Amino acid sequence: MSEKRATIAFDADDTLWHNERYFQISQDRFQDLLAPYSDPDHLSDRLLASERRNVGRYGYGIKGFTLSMIETAIEVTEEKVPANVIRELIAVGQDMLAHPIDLLPGVAEVLETLAATHRLMIITKGDLLDQERKIAQSGLGDLFHAVEIVSEKTPKNYSRIFQAHGITADQAMMVGNSMKSDVLPVLEIGGWGVHVPHDLTWALEHADKPAGHTRFREIPTLSDLPSLIYSLSF
Amino acid sequence: MSEKRATIAFDADDTLWHNERYFQISQDRFQDLLAPYSDPDHLSDRLLASERRNVGRYGYGIKGFTLSMIETAIEVTEEKVPANVIRELIAVGQDMLAHPIDLLPGVAEVLETLAATHRLMIITKGDLLDQERKIAQSGLGDLFHAVEIVSEKTPKNYSRIFQAHGITADQAMMVGNSMKSDVLPVLEIGGWGVHVPHDLTWALEHADKPAGHTRFREIPTLSDLPSLIYSLSF
Repeated sequence: MSEKRATIAFDADDTLWHNERYFQISQDRFQDLLAPYSDPDHLSDRLLASERRNVGRYGYGIKGFTLSMIETAIEVTEEKVPANVIRELIAVGQDMLAHPIDLLPGVAEVLETLAATHRLMIITKGDLLDQERKIAQSGLGDLFHAVEIVSEKTPKNYSRIFQAHGITADQAMMVGNSMKSDVLPVLEIGGWGVHVPHDLTWALEHADKPAGHTRFREIPTLSDLPSLIYSLSF
Repeated sequence: MSEKRATIAFDADDTLWHNERYFQISQDRFQDLLAPYSDPDHLSDRLLASERRNVGRYGYGIKGFTLSMIETAIEVTEEKVPANVIRELIAVGQDMLAHPIDLLPGVAEVLETLAATHRLMIITKGDLLDQERKIAQSGLGDLFHAVEIVSEKTPKNYSRIFQAHGITADQAMMVGNSMKSDVLPVLEIGGWGVHVPHDLTWALEHADKPAGHTRFREIPTLSDLPSLIYSLSF
């Protein structure tokens, strides 16, 4: 066990660095590529429906998103989409897998500050290799005691992770931009949940704010986290 | 820490249950689907070349394999493959993600026997969600102290896992069908490596047998593992 008193776990995508913006750029490219072959109305709805249908088999991440783009392209064109467009969609996915890591403002400073007094972790979901690449390229990896990449952010998975690291839930705080994945399941198991909204959040991550929960907090940016931590004596 | 004296870690695919046979069935379906549109010679070589090229960006698993099939179909037909064939390739991948779990002979008995005296783990690579599904469907999950799904089976990743669980390498044995991924990296960090050959092993997993290594063993089937363990007093 570390001497540090408590654990702060961070979501990664759109909490530490930009992510959803690359999905949006890719959706724009998807629309442009399909425009000559199909009605542009409802294209993004069709893609979202395909993502929703496939998340149970593909899980989260860019590989599944690429397969959902291809599936949608075939569906909306009634099998008329030419192979060179499919090739472009594969390239769209591969570009996403190589996108640069742009840290959100203040992230490096906040993590360096808190690492001196707390045990820090990353808990993220998505494709294993892609998440590892992003953590490595962020240059922040050494600040974290552990990195956990999960298939789904369920109360059960959070419990398992905290238990494996000898952390009781009341000593654990999860910080992230998704109310559904980062905040609610951690509140449910007795931990702290801090919501840091991001202006782009995927439709499948939306959830209502918990009403009057004592261990729930919301802060406008990650730079507000240290003062929250100190005010809570967490 | 457990009272149990040592840890036996198992690879999953083609060590505990069949896996490569589903890739082979899919490759046959790939060949049949492409036969009307391209020269059948070298088709499997072209697919393997695509998998090899993509493994650094997609990692291991069925989603990346599906994307490699689609890419190869487009390449070998010089962009003439019709969309309905691509749709079939997506279905081939989805069928793989739903394939039943067929345990290899004797696996359940061996694991139940060893779980009484040793701490058992699974260390596997591939898509996170798919590997979790297979472990759940195997019905064996409760026999394992931990399940670790990694992006690549490197000495560094094995070290990290053993360290996280408080295990020194000389107390750790890895059992699997891949010399390259299951045996050699664990020998390198000071652990035991037990090779259980499987008649189907993917070309990217081949490696030479280590010459005269004291902590290396090879057994014909997993049923031979308990007597090996007891003869070694491991």
